[in-house]
Amino acid sequence: MTERITSRKNDAVRAAARLAQSAAARRESGLFLCEGARLCADAALSGAAIESLFFTEKAEEKYAAYLAPIERAAKRAFLVSEPVEDLLSCTGASQGVFCVCRMAEKRREAELPLTHCLALETLQDPGNLGTALRTAEALGIGSVLLAGECCDVYSPKVLRASMGAVFRLPIFFAESLPEALGRLSARGFFSCAAVPDSAAEPVTRVDFSCPCVMAVGNEGNGLSREAIDACDRRVTIPMLGRAESLNAASSAAILMWEMTRGGGVRRDG
Amino acid sequence: MTERITSRKNDAVRAAARLAQSAAARRESGLFLCEGARLCADAALSGAAIESLFFTEKAEEKYAAYLAPIERAAKRAFLVSEPVEDLLSCTGASQGVFCVCRMAEKRREAELPLTHCLALETLQDPGNLGTALRTAEALGIGSVLLAGECCDVYSPKVLRASMGAVFRLPIFFAESLPEALGRLSARGFFSCAAVPDSAAEPVTRVDFSCPCVMAVGNEGNGLSREAIDACDRRVTIPMLGRAESLNAASSAAILMWEMTRGGGVRRDG
Repeated sequence: MTERITSRKNDAVRAAARLAQSAAARRESGLFLCEGARLCADAALSGAAIESLFFTEKAEEKYAAYLAPIERAAKRAFLVSEPVEDLLSCTGASQGVFCVCRMAEKRREAELPLTHCLALETLQDPGNLGTALRTAEALGIGSVLLAGECCDVYSPKVLRASMGAVFRLPIFFAESLPEALGRLSARGFFSCAAVPDSAAEPVTRVDFSCPCVMAVGNEGNGLSREAIDACDRRVTIPMLGRAESLNAASSAAILMWEMTRGGGVRRDG
Repeated sequence: MTERITSRKNDAVRAAARLAQSAAARRESGLFLCEGARLCADAALSGAAIESLFFTEKAEEKYAAYLAPIERAAKRAFLVSEPVEDLLSCTGASQGVFCVCRMAEKRREAELPLTHCLALETLQDPGNLGTALRTAEALGIGSVLLAGECCDVYSPKVLRASMGAVFRLPIFFAESLPEALGRLSARGFFSCAAVPDSAAEPVTRVDFSCPCVMAVGNEGNGLSREAIDACDRRVTIPMLGRAESLNAASSAAILMWEMTRGGGVRRDG
């Protein structure tokens, strides 16, 4: 049965809005808010646990095909008024579809499948993180490892930029990238530290026919010294232009492209 | 002589703030606002015409090295109070350095140098446009052609994401990409339309030893039918994953990387 909510003071609405705004609220509850017809349907179709669905009358007409699988998956559904929609939306162009999802259990790097992996250390920009996840999925990279102080993968901007890859791509977590790299090396991965240093090995010369962990660092400071030292090789994207370095997501895109370009180790391959 | 401004109602301050907020104000005046010590110094060092510089006392201490070339280039300089800084800043983390610059004259595609060119048709997201410009510069792509209804290259988000590439990269404009492609073809360029179609030619098979125009389309809709038809070839980034396509800036990064990877036609080469 669908309940109706017209008050912005409704407890369920207020709790949902807090999830969009606060990483602490997400951490404490283990829940996050997902916005958009397509993204919410992605969550449902990927088997995410959906606690509640909020949708407007307009969305019911316009996004019926997307709403069907979400309604089946959701424990509770609420038809909401436009003022409630405004409170829940983080985008300028709300579609009037939102759901509160439960986070998947955090997987540690010990469970990483033996395929290519993108490891991100302390990536801070949600747009960069979401874009890197989207690219990893598109190129068939097997997993992503988030290490150090990366931004929250369940923030609205990451979810949106990832185009739902957050729900489908195997994501793993490690507190310390250097320590994780040591353990992954023992399991048979070889590791590359991406550095903006023209003296490092050009990534075009690396043979990616064996499972590789490609480590990419923070937007401003790059990888930590310890992470670079823990890697088997230091690789770089040869550049001729004047810009000091590429944007983190663009640089990750080129590196992942090189990892899979030859058709070596790919998730679906 | 540096004047002091403490009032948010000061005419020069209000005009500068409008430039950050409104594309129409920029178009009408031919001016734009640039924020950040590094970006303003990039503008000065690239020979941009700087009408006025605004800086705070804190910035004067912290960013003295950046301020020196900006002060030399600027026609007028204003020391501003923190409330004025808040009015001018579009970022969460203002450095207290701003300058009003005059736009370079718009160059038409007839002047394009005969090197690799990235052509963007109706790219709408400022982050994507800025990132693509930054990548083009880093990889040594000779020029960028903006066609159709691209977002304003002088908006604060584009300037910031470009990391100053807006000031250094040769940027050209065309109203209609299909028509421009016809003229460029007559001048000796070959052209590729980037399409998310697995039946198109993999970009890895294209020989980029001759000057190429790589056409990339709008985030949601891709290239126009007419632009695709005007190109010599339809190329694609082979993908194995589930994501339908890459983000526009990531996809442009991989395409430009393939264009320059072999060391063929590069601006500085």
